[in-house]
Amino acid sequence: MRAEIIAVGSELLTPFRLDTNSLLLTAQLNEVGIQVVNKTVVGDSPEEMRRSFQQALARAEIVVSSGGLGPTDDDRTRQTVADLLGRKLVRDEPTLLKMQERFRRFGRPMPEINLRQAMIIEGSTPLPNPRGTAPGLWIEEKGRTLILLPGVPAELKALFEEQVKPRLARLGIRQRLFTRELRVSGLFESDVEQRVSPLYAQHPEVDTTILASPTGIQLHPRIWSDDPAKAEALLDEITRRMAIALGEHLISTRGEPLEEIVARTLIENRATVSVAESCTGGLLAERLTCIAGSSVYFVGGVVCYSNELKTSLVGVPAEIIDSKGAVSPEVALALADGIRRRTGATLGVGITGIAGPGGGTPEKPVGLVYLAIADERGARERRLQLPGDRERIRMYAAQAALDSVRRHFLIPAHGRI
Amino acid sequence: MRAEIIAVGSELLTPFRLDTNSLLLTAQLNEVGIQVVNKTVVGDSPEEMRRSFQQALARAEIVVSSGGLGPTDDDRTRQTVADLLGRKLVRDEPTLLKMQERFRRFGRPMPEINLRQAMIIEGSTPLPNPRGTAPGLWIEEKGRTLILLPGVPAELKALFEEQVKPRLARLGIRQRLFTRELRVSGLFESDVEQRVSPLYAQHPEVDTTILASPTGIQLHPRIWSDDPAKAEALLDEITRRMAIALGEHLISTRGEPLEEIVARTLIENRATVSVAESCTGGLLAERLTCIAGSSVYFVGGVVCYSNELKTSLVGVPAEIIDSKGAVSPEVALALADGIRRRTGATLGVGITGIAGPGGGTPEKPVGLVYLAIADERGARERRLQLPGDRERIRMYAAQAALDSVRRHFLIPAHGRI
Repeated sequence: MRAEIIAVGSELLTPFRLDTNSLLLTAQLNEVGIQVVNKTVVGDSPEEMRRSFQQALARAEIVVSSGGLGPTDDDRTRQTVADLLGRKLVRDEPTLLKMQERFRRFGRPMPEINLRQAMIIEGSTPLPNPRGTAPGLWIEEKGRTLILLPGVPAELKALFEEQVKPRLARLGIRQRLFTRELRVSGLFESDVEQRVSPLYAQHPEVDTTILASPTGIQLHPRIWSDDPAKAEALLDEITRRMAIALGEHLISTRGEPLEEIVARTLIENRATVSVAESCTGGLLAERLTCIAGSSVYFVGGVVCYSNELKTSLVGVPAEIIDSKGAVSPEVALALADGIRRRTGATLGVGITGIAGPGGGTPEKPVGLVYLAIADERGARERRLQLPGDRERIRMYAAQAALDSVRRHFLIPAHGRI
Repeated sequence: MRAEIIAVGSELLTPFRLDTNSLLLTAQLNEVGIQVVNKTVVGDSPEEMRRSFQQALARAEIVVSSGGLGPTDDDRTRQTVADLLGRKLVRDEPTLLKMQERFRRFGRPMPEINLRQAMIIEGSTPLPNPRGTAPGLWIEEKGRTLILLPGVPAELKALFEEQVKPRLARLGIRQRLFTRELRVSGLFESDVEQRVSPLYAQHPEVDTTILASPTGIQLHPRIWSDDPAKAEALLDEITRRMAIALGEHLISTRGEPLEEIVARTLIENRATVSVAESCTGGLLAERLTCIAGSSVYFVGGVVCYSNELKTSLVGVPAEIIDSKGAVSPEVALALADGIRRRTGATLGVGITGIAGPGGGTPEKPVGLVYLAIADERGARERRLQLPGDRERIRMYAAQAALDSVRRHFLIPAHGRI
């Protein structure tokens, strides 16, 4: 079955914004066996929107749109689609009640303009929006299905998963996309490619995409099939081979981000962690705490930019900073050990480095980062020379530090960094 | 004048790849006075491609495509467009010579399949590709202009700038896009809309886009005009009126993010800041340090998840935590004042709250956040009840805290939070 995606919003026709919702929609549609054959971005003009919806409906069985359901004047998706289908907009009382309830919960009066969001297309099914005010709409028209979703990514995601996907699954499409998501840490993209590409020729029916980012590399082997058992077996086989090729750099075969792996590892080992960061400025603490329930394993963190704070808050001896410099293996070790002792955590992590763009020297260039990890038996450190600009260096350093916590538990007797 | 952009490539219809070329094309087209009214992504299927080109040519004076000009079987843009226009593909000898010369320069024989790239659409003008083999094609058809470009971003960029833009500039389009970018903090999108929408009616020639995110709201008033002086004056006027309507919530009329405004404000006031965060887990420190040179104004931060650390690292009296609870105005105030004293910063910021999803109670629900800011004269606090999931609550809370630093300097005698 074929779908088209329409992203509505004049801001998406400026040089500033991309329609990123279509990536999520494509992944979700693929999972229930629907292939995306066309994506369109259109502005807020009713005339342009009308044409896009009309053409999409002429071509595909399923049309999914995002955006234009807000309360303001330039939110015109509802009205335009109603006009195109020759239907009226009618007020939906259950939707209105939910919206009023939502505003009451936040202790704010509902602005008059939000009333517009309770208007639905005649004959459509409103899809309650668990994360926002505007409901989605499910519309059936002459054998086609039209699904209107809000443009706010968090709202669109929740609405699709909770309301749209179960309805699409009931269509009973047999050919589906089967996929795995492998996550890799501590290798560059070209290293990953060299390790896994020999497998492509042996499995020509599997299409593999590699995605690289400062928070790790993803491998997506994919196969369209109407035989689930066969497809899964084939994916298991290629995943097993990739795992061998990637070794300890493979962190998950189920698409879990490093934060989750680290959280689970710490919990399973009944360990806690504290961090003392300099160049990463809170990024490591932020990644350790973005998981719900992180207070079980995360004790606390210190962002010590100045040398004085490294000493006063974390207990790094001033003479080490004076003799070795703030960016040195010795300071990284003292940060890791100091924060562990001061906070009573099982593990301490220390990061010190030069994120740039200024502050580099020939001996200590921009991108130089020292990481250390300490437990009750001692501390180990590691030197990194990271590429990229300030943002990338900070992200790579936080990623490497997070990965050092995972690696600490790999070999029980020693750990790694 | 109106343009449509078509991105060709089946990989752009997977969940992994976005068409980013269109951002560059849009910026470049806008600069020569051409508005982008539609963007389409289509796969390698000749049938789908043909339909997309046909529809685009029916709607816009200019159609720009990227991708599908390579040497392989799935590069079908040339053939498909030739078929659509009822023209033949003919070998272009100058193009062939340039390609052969290019391969000679790299010391490689030209593969047979590359011959295909020397085939051009009859009556078209080949646009030499300074960075690759496939030339672009400039095609005029019944008053429309069709521009076929390669998909590799570096090739597309060089080709557009060197070959396409000068040709478009010769069209003598007088009307250009003029724009401003206002940034707003501390208001919800609907509040911003209510404040500025009365201006829309008074300036119907200005088209204003509102973009909302947890890191603030952007307003983009835009006007197409053939009179630069008049357009700039009009944008100055509407910007001035928006500034009045938004009051102290307006943080920039030049698109600067809050981090930059806060950095400049602190530097101008010779002030420094330290932060003690609980629910935001390092996010506030991270935003304060993402600007290069932040060590001038950022002293340090503590992420104190546990009550013990609030006391041991920041000096929050344990009896306040016991009697008022960790999420309370009193603890926020003690965090702000404590971190200021312990680090010697001019300002201290404290954040405590419940990011969820667990940990909420009827009295202290998920999303409840207390912010405090302290200087040598004392501390003030503010209560927020934030909507959304864990990630949004953390982002909104960090944003509000960052904004409280900016607001602190608004009224010299007192400041605000």
